[in-house]
This record gives sequence, C-alpha cells and structure tokens, in this order.
Amino acid sequence: MSDDLVPALKVQRHPERAVADRTVAFAILDEALICHVGFVANGRPWVIPTMYARDGEVLYLHGSPASRMLRNLAGGIDVSVTVTLLDGLVLARSVFSHSMNYRSVVIAGKATEVDDPDIKLAAMRCLVEHVLRGRWNEVRTPSAKEIATTLVLALPLEHLSIKARTGPPIDIPADRSLPVWAGEIPVGLAFGIPQADALVGDAALPASVVAQTTSGVRR
Amino acid sequence: MSDDLVPALKVQRHPERAVADRTVAFAILDEALICHVGFVANGRPWVIPTMYARDGEVLYLHGSPASRMLRNLAGGIDVSVTVTLLDGLVLARSVFSHSMNYRSVVIAGKATEVDDPDIKLAAMRCLVEHVLRGRWNEVRTPSAKEIATTLVLALPLEHLSIKARTGPPIDIPADRSLPVWAGEIPVGLAFGIPQADALVGDAALPASVVAQTTSGVRR
Repeated sequence: MSDDLVPALKVQRHPERAVADRTVAFAILDEALICHVGFVANGRPWVIPTMYARDGEVLYLHGSPASRMLRNLAGGIDVSVTVTLLDGLVLARSVFSHSMNYRSVVIAGKATEVDDPDIKLAAMRCLVEHVLRGRWNEVRTPSAKEIATTLVLALPLEHLSIKARTGPPIDIPADRSLPVWAGEIPVGLAFGIPQADALVGDAALPASVVAQTTSGVRR
Repeated sequence: MSDDLVPALKVQRHPERAVADRTVAFAILDEALICHVGFVANGRPWVIPTMYARDGEVLYLHGSPASRMLRNLAGGIDVSVTVTLLDGLVLARSVFSHSMNYRSVVIAGKATEVDDPDIKLAAMRCLVEHVLRGRWNEVRTPSAKEIATTLVLALPLEHLSIKARTGPPIDIPADRSLPVWAGEIPVGLAFGIPQADALVGDAALPASVVAQTTSGVRR
C-alpha cells in the first residue's frame, strides 16, 4: 500500500489506458467521503482531512475563510490530495504476506480560489450532493452572505495517479500447504440508523436519508 | 473538518488536558486501520496511504525497502501522519450548516529506521495484531530473511494534535423551525463475510476472523 506511486506521467506512455484510468479515478473520488490534503506550511508538511466533491474535471474544497489550510492553498502552493477506499483485510498464511485491498487516488496540483458567486453556489451544491444525493433540494439553500463567507477552492484533476490492490492473498509456494485459513475480510463504510435532532419531532425521514441508509452502499 | 489544527503546543497551556488528550489520540490510532503520510519529495508535498500500528509511544510504518515513501522518510525528513475516523454525516436544515462528525489525529515528527531484528520482529507483530487481533499466533511468523527485507520505521508520538466533531447539527436560530429533517447518519467501517482463498478448502474460520466479523466493531 505504501509502495511507489504510479507516476502520473505514466498515462502518457500508455495512452490507451488514459481514459480508463481517469474513469476509475473519478469513480473512487465519487465513492469516498473525505480526502487528505497535503501541503507545506512553516517549512514542513501537513496532512489535514476534509470534505470534497468532484465536478467534472475539478475537485472542490471548501470551508471557513479562517481555515489555515485553505488560506495556505489559496496562495497557489503545491498541494497533494489523496482519497483512499479501504476494501478489505488480506489474510495470508504468513505474517509477511498479509496486506490490504484498497483503491486510492493521488492528485497533485495547485488550487485556486473561486470568486464567482454562481460558481461558488454550484460548488456548494456539488459538496452537499456528494455527501448525500438529493439533500440539496430538501434544505435551505445558501444565502448571499453564506456564499460570501465560504471559501471555495478548485483543484484541476489534471495530474493524478491510481493505486489499488484487489484479490486474495499471495502466499509463497512453500506456505500454501500450511494448515492456516487465508482469505479476505471485505471492509467498507456502513451507514447506521439516522438520529433525528431534538427539534425534528416525529417528521418522516427525507428521501435522501432513506435512500442512503437502506441501500447500504454509497450512492 | 478543515479548520485550523489544534497546535500540539496547546497541550502545554492546558497541562491538565495532556494525559486525556494522549489517551484520546491513542484510542483513535488504535481504532483506525490506515493512515495518510505526508512528506516533501522533489520539492513538493505527497500524501500516501499506508498501514501502521502503535506500540506505546511509537508509531510503526513498514514496507518494501524499494518504497519511495519509506526511503524518503528514512532519510530523516519531516513527516506528517494523519489518521481519521469518519463517524457520521451531519445533516442540517441549511446547506451551510451541513458537516461531518469525525475524530482525527495529526502526528508531526521525523521517523527513523529500525535496524534491530528483534525490534523489527516486535513491530511486525504490532502491525499484524493492529489489523486483526490474534492473527499473529495463527500464522507463520517472519523468517530472518523476511525481517531483513522489511523496512520498518519508527515515528515517536511526541507532537500530536486531535481534532473532532461530535453531536447533532447546529442550525442558526432562524432555521430551526423549518420543516426539514435534521440529524446525523452514523458512519463507520463494517466487516463483510470472510472470503476464503482457493486453497483453504473447508477449514473452519480462525478465532481472529470470527471475533472481528461477528463483533461488528474494530477490536
């Protein structure tokens, strides 16, 4: 999992894979809920988790204008945004061959601040819809003041690389006859029973919540 | 979620919180399965997901000696290791007040390579037991050659900060009477039905796998 990155440039040497790779990367970005943002501040690296959403060829980040991370990124520094889906524990017959199944995307680039209120509003819609499809139409949309006090950054999805492991454990031949159970335990995000806040009363669950919590998978 | 870090130094201004903070941080590290490692290489930041394990006041990373990330870190550069547990989707009555519940730990420091084979073996045990408690005693332990060809790094858990959000959405007063369902959808890792590899035959599931997949929570 920590092996060398597949260089983003590799796509240029396998042009037939470029479209498929981007489709796979976009599917990973659309399925996961959080990213980890890496940047350099005060001369050292920092990695901060945050929400995000993809809109076509752009990844949006957002938050308070007081966010140190966002203010740093808005300055046009290099950023690495990584999204990881853990898919399984890979249990081999030897300690050495244990692993994990996963899919990850590493994005490299520079983010820019989105100033246009209409694009900011569209980005906020993407962000809410990424977390829970259908939620936008159920809630109060942002006021002009809320749009103004949200810092939105756009990161082009230009330089990205995918890493993934799938499948069963790979034991060395000498281990394959050991009397040890080997295989995979699937892992994924699960959604629990929705907890209404104290003011909701006995209102019915909205469609967005019902869809997410009954489907069992991210949608 | 992307707000400013709680500076690690803050603990020094609230000494009464220091022990509790470290206990909370260690619990987060013990519950999560993967971390995101941030470092600077070729003049820019990179964020790579990997396995890890805590042993007391040390975080272990490991992998192939060919790993670019590990080779970089072994050179004594600054590293940021971040571990995040997503706990829930926080659904408010307005787009603006949507959020996520989460717990995260950011560790800052420098990693050093572990040379001593006995300490490397102990670290490998921690790594396997972190992924699945009880697994070490079920499988073939590492040979001297496997220990020699595993790069193990130790990162002291000295400088760390915690960020977390818990609880229901916080709507502005004017929104609280809107006819909109608001609350939290709990989110967490779930473990699926174990899939034996092709060679296992009808061997029974081992105790480690049964415990993890029937408990429903990380143990």
